[in-house]
Amino acid sequence: MMIPIFIFSLLITLSSASVSDFCVADTNQADTPSGYPCKPASKVTVNDFVYSGLGKAGNTSNIINAAVTPAFDAQFPGLNGLGISMARLDIATGGVVPMHTHPGGSEVLIVIQGTICAGFISSANGVYFKTLNKGDIMVFPQGLLHFQINSGKSTALAFVGFSSQSPGLQILDFALFANSLPSELVEKTTFLDDATVKKLKGVLGGTN
Amino acid sequence: MMIPIFIFSLLITLSSASVSDFCVADTNQADTPSGYPCKPASKVTVNDFVYSGLGKAGNTSNIINAAVTPAFDAQFPGLNGLGISMARLDIATGGVVPMHTHPGGSEVLIVIQGTICAGFISSANGVYFKTLNKGDIMVFPQGLLHFQINSGKSTALAFVGFSSQSPGLQILDFALFANSLPSELVEKTTFLDDATVKKLKGVLGGTN
Amino acid sequence: MMIPIFIFSLLITLSSASVSDFCVADTNQADTPSGYPCKPASKVTVNDFVYSGLGKAGNTSNIINAAVTPAFDAQFPGLNGLGISMARLDIATGGVVPMHTHPGGSEVLIVIQGTICAGFISSANGVYFKTLNKGDIMVFPQGLLHFQINSGKSTALAFVGFSSQSPGLQILDFALFANSLPSELVEKTTFLDDATVKKLKGVLGGTN
Amino acid sequence: MMIPIFIFSLLITLSSASVSDFCVADTNQADTPSGYPCKPASKVTVNDFVYSGLGKAGNTSNIINAAVTPAFDAQFPGLNGLGISMARLDIATGGVVPMHTHPGGSEVLIVIQGTICAGFISSANGVYFKTLNKGDIMVFPQGLLHFQINSGKSTALAFVGFSSQSPGLQILDFALFANSLPSELVEKTTFLDDATVKKLKGVLGGTN
Amino acid sequence: MMIPIFIFSLLITLSSASVSDFCVADTNQADTPSGYPCKPASKVTVNDFVYSGLGKAGNTSNIINAAVTPAFDAQFPGLNGLGISMARLDIATGGVVPMHTHPGGSEVLIVIQGTICAGFISSANGVYFKTLNKGDIMVFPQGLLHFQINSGKSTALAFVGFSSQSPGLQILDFALFANSLPSELVEKTTFLDDATVKKLKGVLGGTN
Amino acid sequence: MMIPIFIFSLLITLSSASVSDFCVADTNQADTPSGYPCKPASKVTVNDFVYSGLGKAGNTSNIINAAVTPAFDAQFPGLNGLGISMARLDIATGGVVPMHTHPGGSEVLIVIQGTICAGFISSANGVYFKTLNKGDIMVFPQGLLHFQINSGKSTALAFVGFSSQSPGLQILDFALFANSLPSELVEKTTFLDDATVKKLKGVLGGTN
Repeated sequence: MMIPIFIFSLLITLSSASVSDFCVADTNQADTPSGYPCKPASKVTVNDFVYSGLGKAGNTSNIINAAVTPAFDAQFPGLNGLGISMARLDIATGGVVPMHTHPGGSEVLIVIQGTICAGFISSANGVYFKTLNKGDIMVFPQGLLHFQINSGKSTALAFVGFSSQSPGLQILDFALFANSLPSELVEKTTFLDDATVKKLKGVLGGTN
Repeated sequence: MMIPIFIFSLLITLSSASVSDFCVADTNQADTPSGYPCKPASKVTVNDFVYSGLGKAGNTSNIINAAVTPAFDAQFPGLNGLGISMARLDIATGGVVPMHTHPGGSEVLIVIQGTICAGFISSANGVYFKTLNKGDIMVFPQGLLHFQINSGKSTALAFVGFSSQSPGLQILDFALFANSLPSELVEKTTFLDDATVKKLKGVLGGTN
Repeated sequence: MMIPIFIFSLLITLSSASVSDFCVADTNQADTPSGYPCKPASKVTVNDFVYSGLGKAGNTSNIINAAVTPAFDAQFPGLNGLGISMARLDIATGGVVPMHTHPGGSEVLIVIQGTICAGFISSANGVYFKTLNKGDIMVFPQGLLHFQINSGKSTALAFVGFSSQSPGLQILDFALFANSLPSELVEKTTFLDDATVKKLKGVLGGTN
Repeated sequence: MMIPIFIFSLLITLSSASVSDFCVADTNQADTPSGYPCKPASKVTVNDFVYSGLGKAGNTSNIINAAVTPAFDAQFPGLNGLGISMARLDIATGGVVPMHTHPGGSEVLIVIQGTICAGFISSANGVYFKTLNKGDIMVFPQGLLHFQINSGKSTALAFVGFSSQSPGLQILDFALFANSLPSELVEKTTFLDDATVKKLKGVLGGTN
Repeated sequence: MMIPIFIFSLLITLSSASVSDFCVADTNQADTPSGYPCKPASKVTVNDFVYSGLGKAGNTSNIINAAVTPAFDAQFPGLNGLGISMARLDIATGGVVPMHTHPGGSEVLIVIQGTICAGFISSANGVYFKTLNKGDIMVFPQGLLHFQINSGKSTALAFVGFSSQSPGLQILDFALFANSLPSELVEKTTFLDDATVKKLKGVLGGTN
Repeated sequence: MMIPIFIFSLLITLSSASVSDFCVADTNQADTPSGYPCKPASKVTVNDFVYSGLGKAGNTSNIINAAVTPAFDAQFPGLNGLGISMARLDIATGGVVPMHTHPGGSEVLIVIQGTICAGFISSANGVYFKTLNKGDIMVFPQGLLHFQINSGKSTALAFVGFSSQSPGLQILDFALFANSLPSELVEKTTFLDDATVKKLKGVLGGTN
């Protein structure tokens, strides 16, 4: 058979072009607006595309009785440049994923176990919430305040997908009360009173 | 001179292709994810690209002593499809543009008059705020909570640009307290107490 | 309290702009390159953002002993314009999701139950496959050939997320053998012999 | 053989989702910022994806001794939504495609016949031009002024590709002199003198 | 109170992912098509998001009696990756911002002081111009030739926003006459005569 | 004349901003999801924007009697960041460009010489193929299986443009049979029998 001449030269010619199928993050280099620089293709293995960090329940022994475990590009470098990521939600009985936003992406949630009351609020202040059962999916449009509450009698488990490799996660109470933003500014911009702000800063570790 | 044959046929040939320079919104048709369908090019005039709605101060006789006047694609159809929009901020003495987000775009603010204390909070709960004087500009990355306060002794005026023709505007207090989201859900997802929630719902017109 | 004047006028002013938080598909109108035109915001309810079609197992009584149940924008109009979608994979013992591509998006898969051998092939003809257990996630970059096989002894269940509201699904064998593409063209472009092509056309319902 | 049940139901289930592989323009409907609404998939044939309009030379009997024949989405509806288009350049001996820009896309040119001197100017006023021979390709970055001149002794032929289905074409002289833009404004904004402006308006059919 | 365990581990877990809220340019590294690599989040301060360079009038003692002061990503690194930028226009009496394009973005202009006659020309050679007064805004679609003229009796001031962090600025006369593009090529591609080209090259510092 | 002060300072001021007109790839640095980092503008010459590699016929003395010569960003660094690329197809009599996909972009083909039967298959398994003559163009939507066959009696030549600087190229037979993907997995996921798989692996150099 007299094949190879073309074939192997073609394979070689094209191999440099085809790196762009994927771009596994080299997180040792500085990030860019489009994601991390790519690890050399020669060093990429299947393990770069597989992540096991969502395989076990997050620790829900905390004040919210819930845990969010992200698989964003920083945790899972194989996602870099692909515009998608995931996270795991464990919500114990009575637990809640508090009001939050993802500044950089929309979210789809699927309930694997238990019952979750989930909802979001639109820019027009419209309210959209519903109780979700096993197998139900719900979408939360980009950047809008939303929440998930365990509304059942057992632990709830859900997985969520995002339309970004790095959607961000801004939890409202942490943004307002778990940092050094002066109480006076919090009060002026939220209409909350000083006692409320100071109490929540105390609980969440905020200062000033 | 024997020009015209080519030239005018060229002009005619190309005129249908060139509609895509712009796409003035036909707001009588349904919106799409990329914006409104385009008004026929033959009906477009310079007035579609000019808007005078930001030319006078918004009414700041209200509880926040401030007014936000948007020039998004719904107000200014010429922006449709162009990925940019503007708004005017009037903040009377003591006034505040309360904590809010723009789910769909980043913002740049320029102070035209007065003194404004502006800031935002990152997903990592980092706090970034500063007092801005006339001529200063500040950028607020997409989807993050931010605020503007008149920190001077006279009325402040600013204009803002957005990286979207329709960035949205979700004001935190309105999202939480100015609609029918049940107090119980607000409380569970924000850690605010019932009295606080009910009081703010009263002020802002919320129910349930 | 003398609030309302500003607040309600603000609410009214902004309500038209804020439609763009989301764009629930009006599938009665023609699609566009960015998705379907939007249903009027006044008719949107929470049910537009919730979908229950992935809640029960697909029927795996077929030659591949597997079923793919999509929740793309055509099935779940609330996803329209949001750049994300999902699907459910049920793979009975011995079953397989045959070699396929999604022309329009990358995929992340999470194993909910069972054991799945999944893999993809790069443009450089690199081979990346691995056995995934419950809780493992794997990413398949956009447009590349990939597959999932039940490699365990019980039914496997997985959910997948896509970086597109309408990623498409091109199953290799169906593309080659389940339509009217003439056998001669299939043979010339795949190097498969006539007997193989005719046999598979027979199995999969192809003609010519 | 006991196949069909699954297969045909799968085919049916998926057929509605897969429209988004392509979106042949229905140019009878209004354009949108992302392109025209799609023709129903059931009415699409291979002829929607094939265009013969570039197969014959444009008429170069005109003052520039050249012709640009576009295959943008308005001429070739199959391109709609795909982010690519083409054009044919015929440049007779001594002919020139005058200084122009494509506001909406980058261009790659390939010389099929003859010799072309082509160039562009950067925002930093850098000058990049070169004589291209048969088989040479040159790229012109989006939105920059560029030109092509027949620098050989026979007719030149080139094809160009654009990174947009509708890149636009703004020919400098036509923009300045072939419309109703008042001479006074042209003069003030270009530093050209009145005689020059009036002369070129005369040649190109401009008024005012 | 027994909070912290979860909260602080959550804060730590997420802090690496949340860098992507913003990407302040590290202009010491090479730019990429999506912008500069990001400065480490730990070194970012509020000063990276504030810029004072537009606070004072540009020097209009020049032939155009005008000045354009950009705040693009190269000047204001906090804009990097955010798809927006600004500039300040100072136009003295009789001054003009000459015919120019922004190859990479659309522009919105707001008049702060004075009267400006502004306009643009479409690909179809349509002419759109109007006199703008204080508070008026006008949009200039991406890549199209446009201009601004002080049409009043006092200095005019305007601020402009762009739909890109680095929209570029190609001033027509500088592109044609302020560099080494040979006069012969300018003449052939613009139909301007040799005397005109040489005169403007003389004024603007061009050679050849 | 007292020009220069403004002009040259303006030129200097803007020169750093205007790098973003283009971003010639520095292929010595790691790629990113948006393309390679940029070569310093001061080192860029016109030669970075011109490529001669498509000027001569590829070697068609191989089993497919055809050759694909790419001009993607890896071969032609001037394309970096511009969202476009090209390739040359030489198809000898009886030759074929086998069934393949471009995972990252749509393609437009123009026949320069000879006769080509080209086609693609949609996600809905629709078949679209036609015989193309000199001057005909055909578009192949992103990510779909397609092919080109010389259906005439002489060598065929075509050039293709892509809507990506790095569209990738996955040739079906090479993906299945020219690597180490175990025969057992190929068989399970394609329904091809063992003899067929082993034979093609033999021809194409695959193992396992």
